[in-house]
Amino acid sequence: MKTPTINEQQRRQHILDAFIVHVIEKGFHRASMSSIAKTAGLSVGQIYRYFESKEDIIHALVERKTEEYLSLMEDFLDKKDWLARHFEQVETQDFYNQRILHIEIRAEATRNPKVAKIQYDAELRLNAQAVSIVKQRYHLEDEIDIAARVEFLVSLTEGMLSRSQCLQRPFSIQAHALYQRIFDELFPNHNRS
Amino acid sequence: MKTPTINEQQRRQHILDAFIVHVIEKGFHRASMSSIAKTAGLSVGQIYRYFESKEDIIHALVERKTEEYLSLMEDFLDKKDWLARHFEQVETQDFYNQRILHIEIRAEATRNPKVAKIQYDAELRLNAQAVSIVKQRYHLEDEIDIAARVEFLVSLTEGMLSRSQCLQRPFSIQAHALYQRIFDELFPNHNRS
Repeated sequence: MKTPTINEQQRRQHILDAFIVHVIEKGFHRASMSSIAKTAGLSVGQIYRYFESKEDIIHALVERKTEEYLSLMEDFLDKKDWLARHFEQVETQDFYNQRILHIEIRAEATRNPKVAKIQYDAELRLNAQAVSIVKQRYHLEDEIDIAARVEFLVSLTEGMLSRSQCLQRPFSIQAHALYQRIFDELFPNHNRS
Repeated sequence: MKTPTINEQQRRQHILDAFIVHVIEKGFHRASMSSIAKTAGLSVGQIYRYFESKEDIIHALVERKTEEYLSLMEDFLDKKDWLARHFEQVETQDFYNQRILHIEIRAEATRNPKVAKIQYDAELRLNAQAVSIVKQRYHLEDEIDIAARVEFLVSLTEGMLSRSQCLQRPFSIQAHALYQRIFDELFPNHNRS
């Protein structure tokens, strides 16, 4: 695979952005390649030069998201109350869009094995990276144990994302304290063990 | 509103079941009232005698699910490792269908304020009931604190449901131990406090 030029990368980016617009507005199934092309200012033929199918676009989106998560993860695993604080400040349009996109991809994955595999592979990568960061940073040795802790955190985060319209906000002092205690249990600090 | 006769209740039940079949197969948007009627062995006109719209069907489904959850909750809050054990045994078709339905309703709620409200109201009811059970059962007094604990558990459960195709199974001994510790932190036993 040749490295795309800046221009090609930008085009891919425009297509991904157009796809997001349509999925958020209408859902995955009603986001047609022709409407995506129109929004991206390209012909349908041009779109197919970059992506074979909607699944291919999802693949690229999940990859991009995975890279973002990987770059955030170090930070995230350092600041334990970040999770509660993050979900407390989720009134932005961008967060809202990310949430819809995530739920749409989950819904599509229930019926589409290709999408399920894309999502599963991305999670495996993220979890492996998280296990490696946690192992370096905390007083934990047993990789199976660390994997269980990471998976717990991932499930919790996913649930908070999915329920973010239902979460009681602002979080109470009691809620912040609870999150802090659970995170101390999940990822014990060096100086406490 | 007159109390439905058994026969009417059964009809409603058939319609709900037919709706589930189509949503699982094709998603919410492609489940048409006419295909639902066909599967339920009724005319479209008859369907509309029971439900005005697909939102109405969702409302009835969410209500039914809420009643189920309420009746399970006492049990659930007693057996703390139940969560991990439950998600370890989720290979059944029924669980799979419930999961798809849940994700579809979440996805629809992102675009449809009526569905969002149905889901939000059901969650409020469930959470209020859970707070009341926890208060009776555990050494916890502060209702804001209890609400935070319940919400944590609900988010975790939602995340596990959403990710159940990605969860590493069977759960490791370490994972079971972790769940047990977190649950002891969330809902401290009488005899330990």
